[in-house]
Amino acid sequence: MSKTKGRVTLPSEAGFLNETKEMLERWGADALRDSDGTKLPAEIKALDAEIYTTYFVARGHNEFAKEHMDECQQLYLMSKRCTAFEKELTIDFMDGYYEEQVVPDYLHDPAKWWEVIDRTTDTVVPVTAWELDHENNRVIIPCADRFHEYTVSFLVYAIWDPTQMYNHITNNWGDKPHDIPFDVRQTASGRFAKEYLIQWLKENPDTDVVRFTTFFYHFTLVFNQHAKEKFVDWFGYGASVSVKALEAFEAEYGYALRPEDIIDNGYYNTTFRVPSRHYLDYIDFIQRFVAAKAKELVELVHAAGKKAMMFLGDNWIGTEPYGQYFESIGLDAVVGSVGGGATLRLISDIPHVKYTEGRFLPYFFPDTFYEGNDPCVEAMENWLTARRAIMRKPVDRIGYGGYLSLAYKFPKFVDYIEQVTDEFREIYDNVHGKKPFCGLKVAILNSWGKLRSWQTYMVAHALWYKQIYSYLGILESLSGASVDVCFISFEDILKNGIASDIDVIINAGDAGTAFSGGEEWLDLQLVTTIRKWVYEGGGFVGIGEPSAIHKGGRFFQLADILGVDKELGFTLSTDKYFTQAEKTHFITEDRSEAFDFGESMKNVYALEENTEIVEYSNGEVHIAAHAYGAGRGVYIAGLPYSQANTRLLMRSLYYAAGKEQEFKRWFAENPLCEVHAYPETGKYAILNNSAKAQTSNIYDGEGRIEEVSLAPAEIIWKEIRA
Amino acid sequence: MSKTKGRVTLPSEAGFLNETKEMLERWGADALRDSDGTKLPAEIKALDAEIYTTYFVARGHNEFAKEHMDECQQLYLMSKRCTAFEKELTIDFMDGYYEEQVVPDYLHDPAKWWEVIDRTTDTVVPVTAWELDHENNRVIIPCADRFHEYTVSFLVYAIWDPTQMYNHITNNWGDKPHDIPFDVRQTASGRFAKEYLIQWLKENPDTDVVRFTTFFYHFTLVFNQHAKEKFVDWFGYGASVSVKALEAFEAEYGYALRPEDIIDNGYYNTTFRVPSRHYLDYIDFIQRFVAAKAKELVELVHAAGKKAMMFLGDNWIGTEPYGQYFESIGLDAVVGSVGGGATLRLISDIPHVKYTEGRFLPYFFPDTFYEGNDPCVEAMENWLTARRAIMRKPVDRIGYGGYLSLAYKFPKFVDYIEQVTDEFREIYDNVHGKKPFCGLKVAILNSWGKLRSWQTYMVAHALWYKQIYSYLGILESLSGASVDVCFISFEDILKNGIASDIDVIINAGDAGTAFSGGEEWLDLQLVTTIRKWVYEGGGFVGIGEPSAIHKGGRFFQLADILGVDKELGFTLSTDKYFTQAEKTHFITEDRSEAFDFGESMKNVYALEENTEIVEYSNGEVHIAAHAYGAGRGVYIAGLPYSQANTRLLMRSLYYAAGKEQEFKRWFAENPLCEVHAYPETGKYAILNNSAKAQTSNIYDGEGRIEEVSLAPAEIIWKEIRA
Repeated sequence: MSKTKGRVTLPSEAGFLNETKEMLERWGADALRDSDGTKLPAEIKALDAEIYTTYFVARGHNEFAKEHMDECQQLYLMSKRCTAFEKELTIDFMDGYYEEQVVPDYLHDPAKWWEVIDRTTDTVVPVTAWELDHENNRVIIPCADRFHEYTVSFLVYAIWDPTQMYNHITNNWGDKPHDIPFDVRQTASGRFAKEYLIQWLKENPDTDVVRFTTFFYHFTLVFNQHAKEKFVDWFGYGASVSVKALEAFEAEYGYALRPEDIIDNGYYNTTFRVPSRHYLDYIDFIQRFVAAKAKELVELVHAAGKKAMMFLGDNWIGTEPYGQYFESIGLDAVVGSVGGGATLRLISDIPHVKYTEGRFLPYFFPDTFYEGNDPCVEAMENWLTARRAIMRKPVDRIGYGGYLSLAYKFPKFVDYIEQVTDEFREIYDNVHGKKPFCGLKVAILNSWGKLRSWQTYMVAHALWYKQIYSYLGILESLSGASVDVCFISFEDILKNGIASDIDVIINAGDAGTAFSGGEEWLDLQLVTTIRKWVYEGGGFVGIGEPSAIHKGGRFFQLADILGVDKELGFTLSTDKYFTQAEKTHFITEDRSEAFDFGESMKNVYALEENTEIVEYSNGEVHIAAHAYGAGRGVYIAGLPYSQANTRLLMRSLYYAAGKEQEFKRWFAENPLCEVHAYPETGKYAILNNSAKAQTSNIYDGEGRIEEVSLAPAEIIWKEIRA
Repeated sequence: MSKTKGRVTLPSEAGFLNETKEMLERWGADALRDSDGTKLPAEIKALDAEIYTTYFVARGHNEFAKEHMDECQQLYLMSKRCTAFEKELTIDFMDGYYEEQVVPDYLHDPAKWWEVIDRTTDTVVPVTAWELDHENNRVIIPCADRFHEYTVSFLVYAIWDPTQMYNHITNNWGDKPHDIPFDVRQTASGRFAKEYLIQWLKENPDTDVVRFTTFFYHFTLVFNQHAKEKFVDWFGYGASVSVKALEAFEAEYGYALRPEDIIDNGYYNTTFRVPSRHYLDYIDFIQRFVAAKAKELVELVHAAGKKAMMFLGDNWIGTEPYGQYFESIGLDAVVGSVGGGATLRLISDIPHVKYTEGRFLPYFFPDTFYEGNDPCVEAMENWLTARRAIMRKPVDRIGYGGYLSLAYKFPKFVDYIEQVTDEFREIYDNVHGKKPFCGLKVAILNSWGKLRSWQTYMVAHALWYKQIYSYLGILESLSGASVDVCFISFEDILKNGIASDIDVIINAGDAGTAFSGGEEWLDLQLVTTIRKWVYEGGGFVGIGEPSAIHKGGRFFQLADILGVDKELGFTLSTDKYFTQAEKTHFITEDRSEAFDFGESMKNVYALEENTEIVEYSNGEVHIAAHAYGAGRGVYIAGLPYSQANTRLLMRSLYYAAGKEQEFKRWFAENPLCEVHAYPETGKYAILNNSAKAQTSNIYDGEGRIEEVSLAPAEIIWKEIRA
């Protein structure tokens, strides 16, 4: 590869001028950034590179915030559940919370804004039946029902930004002041946010890109009494609440939200909950506010001749990059952290910005860059998983974070990233703006649809959870596969039917969650629309507990399509005749390793003789297929990410779509390799997604075969044969 | 052991007189029985033994039945679920059924007695909206809703007794007539049943014991179009239905049952379903009828100077030996099949009879008695599992079935059973009528309570099912343990509270089933009554998904007692801090082998710091304990039967009861041994429950220790020290 330049952002730091120049050269970087807590010195800012400067809107201005503590951000919190062992019950509602992070809001009348709930009866305790002990932060219920559980839903002010708090505690920042988060919805704060930015833009002429970190409301992140994380929801609107917002909501919608609309049994409307109408109204309301306010700031940035970039995280709540108001903000760019293919696509698919940037791993921090460790291992894994997603839809830039001086001490790493940055630019030049070959169009169906594109099954960005990895593999597999991927909601189907260009619908997740759909499946129109669509030729792939809710003698409401259902104990008396897997099946015909369904799913069984049992073990079906009219259903018990499972999913999708004959187009037989073709430009690329040399038969778009050998991690570009 | 005699029943057969005499002598038998299909010849009947004769009330009288085909037994059946792909839908409702077993009932107006249901909307299709094609057994819905699923609930006549059918097909009985089951509720059949018995009693003067096999209604057992079992529910009242019964029900209860009350979404009210009020009414109605009618027959038997014995199985529906009408039947005895300890207790605990008899395994059939096989292996396993239950509450007699001539060919087996029968009589003489030492009183709580004592978690008697073995182990463990066991229903608690002598309540099963309780847990009074009882010192042991129904932010409604709940995906955002198991814990302190939770339970987590995590692996809690006021909760993920799990359960029970200090009373340290004490008689027995020699420290009632060595399967009797 020849040496190229551009599309790369580096962190830098004081006292590192010459090395920064060298690294700019070697990695072909054209932008420099500061980090949380570091500032770029003037000499660095003067280099031939765009300068990104981190900007905090709603924190880091304590001189203002301290004067306006009544404009701090707010949250609704739920106390612990307390059982009334005696007639009188006292609830220490702050028990379990960290008083340096949150304090009760006594400015607004608790009788109006708080709720005491009997969780055993699921009813609200009348305000006349409880008393408040301000001094001790306690609620007293003088005449409780014995052995009922009660909770208090109460408003707090947040007095410490949770990200700064986390960094503060982790890095032992001692008496460094706590960033107080203020709410731009409030009069003084709203004015301050703009005025400060105007001033700041004047004072920072060297800044080319204002990197908003981020706008107004942090995702819900609450700490416990020991200052340890207690609740984290990367999608949570918890910290966007305020009395002012609730009043404005009521004025606009004509109904008042209850605290319980936010508290939601203590689930706080996690993205795993099928969203209530009230919650959907609320987040739409917040999104409109955030978009309008953010737009004002972006316009100021533009007026100052600079670009506005948003960091995808921290105070990103309400921006919803795939939502309908995001475009109106007018941002130039979004930057986010890349953990693999799915998170790459989460960034690169964001519409309505001029460019996107991915911050790659590893972070230049001592946890990876220490003597004896090879940071190339993590870097290569990160790059190879992200690269296949880049082949489908590239971010426009890549970048790194942390201490450049630390990375500089690892020459092998510097060499490797030099190669990666060149490779990235080569790929980008080839694929940017070009539609890659897609064999199928796949729609992922859940309660959130497009709004949470590439954000399904996630708790806190890309963190591993036992309950999600068996579903996250679907996104990771698809992120770099030769299929078009879209995200649709149940409401989309009810409103608009199913788009005619969709080949396969995937519904996956645990029963009752927003991803499987829970009570959404009680809707007749939903069920019959999908049945009709599959009957007429569509494909439906269910993973885990698809369409699951117990009703009318079925658990999987689309059991008729899938040919399988889950035994809940009620049909044990019914003989299960079908327990023999097919000897061979298209879906598994090239599987060479043991099956891995991750957490898998128990007690799934075949309903009919013509259910094709593809995998059966331990008295259960784990893969099945089933014809339904002109279409097909496919069931899979779980799909953690692996190359073998990517293959399994792709075969399932082609089978569901009835397009098995077209499967081997731009196809690598070896599952560790993949082919991406760009008919517009007449090129195709063969990727070795592994760190070892590979050989594979490669099928072109006409099904012609050639055998190709690839070096570890190699990417080979070829011209498409006529 | 000295040679003793009595309490043993043998099968016999023609042409086997001398050997029968020898076996009577060697096994000390005092009764002889025929089997299904064999008859005892006069010479055998003349031996010095009671003669049992099998008697069928409602089948085996085809000359009568053929004249009264309108009095055949009836069932409600549900057709397959049929999707309306087009506007007109035709349902071949007999598809999947066996026309030699069941035929549609067209004598009673289908418009009145049948139901066509739209399972997608869960609504009944008006009778005006469907038509019946008698000739082809089809229902036509001319204007169906497309892509809705429909079913037909239809009445049939049963024209072949399913047990005879099974034997007929299995043994290739060829053109032997099919036994037609008639319904004694009908006028002619009711009269015939009595008149025939009167005559039969006269004609069988040699019979001492009339062995009813059984009374009127077979448990639900339906075959498919290939004459293979399709649906089997040992508890099912399916075959007790008739138009006459439904009319009588309506007259008495003031409301009519719908077909759906019997069909129940195709679940047919399996014993795993939380029973509806209508179903409970219905089975009570049938029980009263069965008891009254059976009483009439039993009185005839008594009038003839004979004893009446009931076989626990086949046509036993409505007798419910633990129900409130059973006593009124006036039976002398019940005989049933013994698969292990739980099924032994199922027989031996039956109240209101003069004696009970257990039929032991193996059956003298060629599937076990073939050259090269050692039938002693199965016999010893059967005996050792049943023996520990006999120590708690003995059956009064044991017996065997099949061909005695076959068993006779296996001298080692004959020797072994000689030893078993002597051992049985020795145990019986020691324990009959004596209250054994019980350290605790344990109540198993579910929807069925006492009515289905020792019958919980069962589908078809003692058959193995993947979904039940992890719960059946509870019964098997308790059947021979030094605890009092009772069975209580949720309704019992609501009506009568919790009896003061109960130490521990066990609630176990999969969520939603009658054993866990499902929607029963929505009842406030139930939840608060148990909470109060535990708070005041009771013990609550939950296994699998105890008290599970999703409501108010909890899945386990008694999570506050158990200290654990199950993650459904809605609290992934809440940090789970408690993942460290206690280093040692009373419940597991002598566990030497790997844990075995059977099917186990996923995603259970500890809620509180003071939850005692006893076993944690794979990111889940499998055993936990938790103090709740003066009482305790214990959670176990599953309990398949083994000696080690019996120990685990016993420790859990003692811990829940707060009686750890009393655990080592009449206790064997070696879990393969057990001690049973009879303070009334001043004796105790030490059992080796294994087929190998064992040594164990033995604790007496004062906690004094002695080391005892036991031969394989040995039982040692000792005098209690003063």
